[in-house]
Amino acid sequence: MKNDTILLGHGSGGTLSHDLISSLFVRYFQNAFLQKQTDSSLLLAEKEMIAFTTDSFVVDPVFFPGGNIGKLAVCGTVNDLAVSGAQPKYLSASFIIEEGFPLNDLETIVASMAEEALKAGVQIVTGDTKVVNRGKADKLFITTTGIGFLDKQFENISYGTQIIPGDKIILNGSVGNHGMAIMKAREADKFSADIESDCACLNHLIASVTGKGLPVRWMRDATRGGLGTVLAELVKERAFGLEVHEEYIPVKRSVEGMCELIGFDPLYVANEGIVVIVVPETHADEVLQILKADPLGKEASLIGQITGEHQGRALIHTGIGGRRIIDMLAGEQLPRIC
Amino acid sequence: MKNDTILLGHGSGGTLSHDLISSLFVRYFQNAFLQKQTDSSLLLAEKEMIAFTTDSFVVDPVFFPGGNIGKLAVCGTVNDLAVSGAQPKYLSASFIIEEGFPLNDLETIVASMAEEALKAGVQIVTGDTKVVNRGKADKLFITTTGIGFLDKQFENISYGTQIIPGDKIILNGSVGNHGMAIMKAREADKFSADIESDCACLNHLIASVTGKGLPVRWMRDATRGGLGTVLAELVKERAFGLEVHEEYIPVKRSVEGMCELIGFDPLYVANEGIVVIVVPETHADEVLQILKADPLGKEASLIGQITGEHQGRALIHTGIGGRRIIDMLAGEQLPRIC
Repeated sequence: MKNDTILLGHGSGGTLSHDLISSLFVRYFQNAFLQKQTDSSLLLAEKEMIAFTTDSFVVDPVFFPGGNIGKLAVCGTVNDLAVSGAQPKYLSASFIIEEGFPLNDLETIVASMAEEALKAGVQIVTGDTKVVNRGKADKLFITTTGIGFLDKQFENISYGTQIIPGDKIILNGSVGNHGMAIMKAREADKFSADIESDCACLNHLIASVTGKGLPVRWMRDATRGGLGTVLAELVKERAFGLEVHEEYIPVKRSVEGMCELIGFDPLYVANEGIVVIVVPETHADEVLQILKADPLGKEASLIGQITGEHQGRALIHTGIGGRRIIDMLAGEQLPRIC
Repeated sequence: MKNDTILLGHGSGGTLSHDLISSLFVRYFQNAFLQKQTDSSLLLAEKEMIAFTTDSFVVDPVFFPGGNIGKLAVCGTVNDLAVSGAQPKYLSASFIIEEGFPLNDLETIVASMAEEALKAGVQIVTGDTKVVNRGKADKLFITTTGIGFLDKQFENISYGTQIIPGDKIILNGSVGNHGMAIMKAREADKFSADIESDCACLNHLIASVTGKGLPVRWMRDATRGGLGTVLAELVKERAFGLEVHEEYIPVKRSVEGMCELIGFDPLYVANEGIVVIVVPETHADEVLQILKADPLGKEASLIGQITGEHQGRALIHTGIGGRRIIDMLAGEQLPRIC
């Protein structure tokens, strides 16, 4: 790469675009689909059911402790497929880049996308690059869209149609790490806490449960809006409620401290490697043990259960013996965390 | 909608996000997939082969004669699927919105996406919304990703592996309209020319040819980089060349005049409703007649042919009797036209 920053011409569809695609995207994401550089990639449907999901990533800053926008874009979309019960297979990646963005930084980001995709067992098979003038975008935005294939037996996981009172609610790890890592990256001079984003692809962890044929009744990754929003969504307009216990929800000391300092509730801070799993009471222990055996689940915890009472409401038993309703956040606690 | 502009909270994943999704996206894109509001949409694979493509749209301005960024985002992705020989079926749509963007404008854009999707016979089944602070994006960027299904007989269209010398090159309409419509929208006071973008979904037009079993050897929509770039790509590193005749390439008077005024070559100006089709000589007339019977193909023209000579090179015979090589553009002729 002769030029050390992104030029408008890199998004023109002309020779500079072609050079960027060959020297960066095709080189790092290496697969036969991309090499063909056609308008669409042609894939084989491996199963009758396809899971399809998309997310745009606008995280600020693009590099943060534990990851960068590229790693996040791959993990976020892989996780959205995995929590649907699908096996993630193919991703598209579309880049909107601000003119002047350093090519070295772009290469680092693309390299970590490739690394994460390899670990997750997915291929980045199609993409697009647009460049906008200086000041018209904030460095780099990435949109990833994913295709996964799904066995018919898992088609109800997304909808939670099998959930009944008594089902247990399990979390694979501690909450609030991603949001606080972003906060720290933004204001490094203010916080010395040792915090890293939990950004990770959860598909193998999830497959270690679903692959054993264990009856998972619902899953959701707790990203924007945090665990609190996911729990509120889980019961919204449903004929059941839920209750969780604050003391069972793992929160790292450093995250708790930082949240206290700035007045945030860890329950609403974003995660990028946290999944909420609802399973029948009879299988809760087994699922918990499986999760704990995986590095991404070693802090797994049974945090509560589905109830027949207070339908549509999520309650949390607080440390001091009280209980309160978990609402969705109205506004924005911390913009651009993903 | 109580608020008349987009707030950061609309991208938070909290209640404002949910309201926006329900009142706008679910309402306009109405389909069972979106209503479920799950992480991934679960689709049935209708055929064994899936075409998969993505594009980000950053067009400036977001409204222009003949369309807007939403219509463009739907048509662009539908066309990328259609030129692969696939039947476009499902789209995802991901929005990156600048804080303060008028909700009315967003509604107009979403409504025209819905209208275009309906016409094209595709469903927008999953999406995402991110909001960035004022000044951190330019109004609105949309990324659409598409899934289409493909009959095995069309799998070579993308690659052009069946192309042989003598094959004819057909264009469905006049070139340069989209790029010049954008230019006019940007500097309305300077140009009075009556120009509209050609932005349109071409899948039905293309199906009117492929559906008859006519042997299409290659297709590509001529977007960024214009017809010139597509022709240069068609022969790049191939064992054949091509020649086209300038006089057979339709260019509207108004577009030609505006191009002359600002020193652009219509051959490199972007289109959003133009497809280049390569067919065997024996079927060229039939394809031409089929195209001409459709409003989107009424200006269709046979512009040239594949040659055994000057392999890897695209030549154009100019009006004044000369000929020159059609190169890809190096840089950016007109940024942010799509």
